[in-house]
Amino acid sequence: MTMTIRQAIDTMMAQIPGASREGSVDTVKCGDASQPLTGIVTAFTVTHRVMREAASLGANLIITHEPTYYNHHDRTDGLAGDPVYETKRRTLEELGLTVWRFHDYWHAHRPDGILTGVARKLGWEPYLDLGRPAMAVVPATTLRSLALELKHKLALPFVRIAGDPEMACRQIGMLLGAVGAERQIDYLRRDDVDAVVCGETAEWQTCEYVRDACAGGRPRGLVVLGHCGSEDEGMRYLADWLRPLLPAVPIAHISSGDPLTLLA
Amino acid sequence: MTMTIRQAIDTMMAQIPGASREGSVDTVKCGDASQPLTGIVTAFTVTHRVMREAASLGANLIITHEPTYYNHHDRTDGLAGDPVYETKRRTLEELGLTVWRFHDYWHAHRPDGILTGVARKLGWEPYLDLGRPAMAVVPATTLRSLALELKHKLALPFVRIAGDPEMACRQIGMLLGAVGAERQIDYLRRDDVDAVVCGETAEWQTCEYVRDACAGGRPRGLVVLGHCGSEDEGMRYLADWLRPLLPAVPIAHISSGDPLTLLA
Repeated sequence: MTMTIRQAIDTMMAQIPGASREGSVDTVKCGDASQPLTGIVTAFTVTHRVMREAASLGANLIITHEPTYYNHHDRTDGLAGDPVYETKRRTLEELGLTVWRFHDYWHAHRPDGILTGVARKLGWEPYLDLGRPAMAVVPATTLRSLALELKHKLALPFVRIAGDPEMACRQIGMLLGAVGAERQIDYLRRDDVDAVVCGETAEWQTCEYVRDACAGGRPRGLVVLGHCGSEDEGMRYLADWLRPLLPAVPIAHISSGDPLTLLA
Repeated sequence: MTMTIRQAIDTMMAQIPGASREGSVDTVKCGDASQPLTGIVTAFTVTHRVMREAASLGANLIITHEPTYYNHHDRTDGLAGDPVYETKRRTLEELGLTVWRFHDYWHAHRPDGILTGVARKLGWEPYLDLGRPAMAVVPATTLRSLALELKHKLALPFVRIAGDPEMACRQIGMLLGAVGAERQIDYLRRDDVDAVVCGETAEWQTCEYVRDACAGGRPRGLVVLGHCGSEDEGMRYLADWLRPLLPAVPIAHISSGDPLTLLA
């Protein structure tokens, strides 16, 4: 018997028994989960290209890490009549796509699914310090070399750093995504953290803490990868993780790509 | 009779009669405002270099646009014992500096003080549309050319853009600083806005709205200047604005500089 989309979601959820569904943003955003599942695409975010490519692969379920409608809870009440929202909603409908968000649960997986996928891509799995959340201990390097290694291995067109490029780095807080300045600073304050790697930051908060730290003789560093660049490999890994769970289902990852272009 | 720091602050405040002091973050962050004023430095943010240069100029008042202690309200209760905070606090004390934040009031000035300073630097004062808050109507251009003009005139090492680089731009939302994704998207949704210029953004929200807008046939653009790059000229203009108000006081602007460096 063919599996429904809902059954596939339940199969995934059963792998993360500890995750609370209470208040989670990981809900079905559109579509009909009672339909038979024809294929899965995993993506960092649901762009128009992701939608079209998913449909052309014959998939009817997109598993996205980020929202579909521009805010954390995918609230759409304020978006009714907005042409950008309406076009996206209609396109998803016409292509017969169901979108399910897999954010809180994937981060709640132990070890964190996004971090695992990124660490695999970096060859950093042996460096993850499982005793400290979101920490990696890497061979001694400098902030600049660390940033260039991440840029190269993640194939990013550019990265940004705050702090002294020549400072020594070994203990790295891997705060992928956009976790907020407060949590970034909480890591940077610690004695056992040299630098934080993030997707997005708050320049007037985290970056100024780093600048003051370096000027005040307590060097700390920040590497800003871009949000998609920092998490996309975690959604690629999700496809690898799903295949043995759903062996009869075609599963592909589609890179969303960075929405920002550099002019330097 | 020599003017005190407090009297200088009151003189500035008297120029912005409509601004509510209720809940404003524009308070004295450290120092003793009853001291005689020896000189003023305006700055985007209080870096160690800004502190040292202010002291070497003989100034004892720094007027800053952004917080001193890494959060909007400069709460320091959680920072006690933090070496980065303690070093900064002690340095300010040793240099005899008073720090006053001038954020809400400067934005509440009509026209907005930050926007005016940036528009003067750009030569865009004739383009400001005073009938619509934070809007400029520029000669027809493309998103790429707009971004390169801003980069060049503000002397920024790099800028980032979201949206089609070749899209036509004329009506520009000048949302300098980090106003939040909600307000950025509110501007981008409008029929009378082609592009938004900002300091910081939320990639997973504003940039994805822009990406969907362009893919869905309703082109919108975003230019991300960096937070300091987007507002520093507004604090330079503050120095010009202050000189006739306080003609006997030495007043200088010190550029904070961007805390982030590009590795491309």
